[in-house]
Amino acid sequence: MVDTDTRKEQIYEAASALFSAHGYEATSVRDIARELGLQGGSLYAHISSKEDVLFEIVVRAADAFYAAVAPLTERADPTLELMRQMIHAHVGVVVNNLSHAVVFQQDWRRLAGPRKLEVLALRDGYEALFRRVIAAGLARGELRECDPRLTSTLLLSALNGLPAWFQPDGRLDADTIADNFADLLLNGLGATSVRSEP
Amino acid sequence: MVDTDTRKEQIYEAASALFSAHGYEATSVRDIARELGLQGGSLYAHISSKEDVLFEIVVRAADAFYAAVAPLTERADPTLELMRQMIHAHVGVVVNNLSHAVVFQQDWRRLAGPRKLEVLALRDGYEALFRRVIAAGLARGELRECDPRLTSTLLLSALNGLPAWFQPDGRLDADTIADNFADLLLNGLGATSVRSEP
Repeated sequence: MVDTDTRKEQIYEAASALFSAHGYEATSVRDIARELGLQGGSLYAHISSKEDVLFEIVVRAADAFYAAVAPLTERADPTLELMRQMIHAHVGVVVNNLSHAVVFQQDWRRLAGPRKLEVLALRDGYEALFRRVIAAGLARGELRECDPRLTSTLLLSALNGLPAWFQPDGRLDADTIADNFADLLLNGLGATSVRSEP
Repeated sequence: MVDTDTRKEQIYEAASALFSAHGYEATSVRDIARELGLQGGSLYAHISSKEDVLFEIVVRAADAFYAAVAPLTERADPTLELMRQMIHAHVGVVVNNLSHAVVFQQDWRRLAGPRKLEVLALRDGYEALFRRVIAAGLARGELRECDPRLTSTLLLSALNGLPAWFQPDGRLDADTIADNFADLLLNGLGATSVRSEP
């Protein structure tokens, strides 16, 4: 007999794999149960709806990004170096929790009402980490003039594309992707741009 | 009586709006018909399946991106300026065809078999425009050292996030977004980065 917590974890893992492969809408509670070798009805002992499961997966993913990146923002490093660390941490969360990250990006809009607002607040809280680091970097003269709000949105727009194309068995590992993202987003493409690392 | 071509256009528009709002999987042919005030059955005089409609929307979106950006790559402008024009053209296609762009990003993976491969080829052909401009810019010493393949992937990853957050009635217009994307992706964030425009 699998205990309740373990079973819940199995449900989130199975649901996350199915949502990321086929989409939230196309996955039924019955599909999740089948993946675990259970009857659809017995899943309802653990969850009350498919949206419950989606909400849990999305909140966990949001928490994972925040937990990985927030502590870095306390460091006293130069802004570009700090942001490089933040990009590495973000990419690390994506590649270590790929199906959760896919669901987070792809399906969070399927949540409704207060839950959608809660996730929007989590997303904005995460973006605020980047916004504050950019604003602080501007204040110290370490960044070129820019709008911290728009720039943090664009930066996360770039990073948030990753779950859609990252191939766990592909030629690119997390460090290579993070380094190249950081080079592009922090240093740009011009021949005479500064590099934040030698 | 609406003629066949007009009716088909109406179908693509209605489907595109529904797919972008609710997702492809959650939208039925009946939903598309209802949006047009038709019986589900009568839609099948114009289309043979929901996947037909998705495929047409995705291919049109891919064509729109290619048609807007490809001619620019023939210009003799400095690489960073050329890429800024390409970014503007890409953002323009997104904001002028937002529901198509959303469906293109969100739902193309729901295509199967040869159609998915065809769309993959279209996507790669589009990315190749950026790849070739980057490679040419490197050869002319106008860009810092980078891997053109990975860099074009990262650049499009960034731009492809836009349909998910662009608000047609929001505070940001296409030019502001494109300018800031270009600043970020071409010039980076560092205080002493070059600017490709004064």
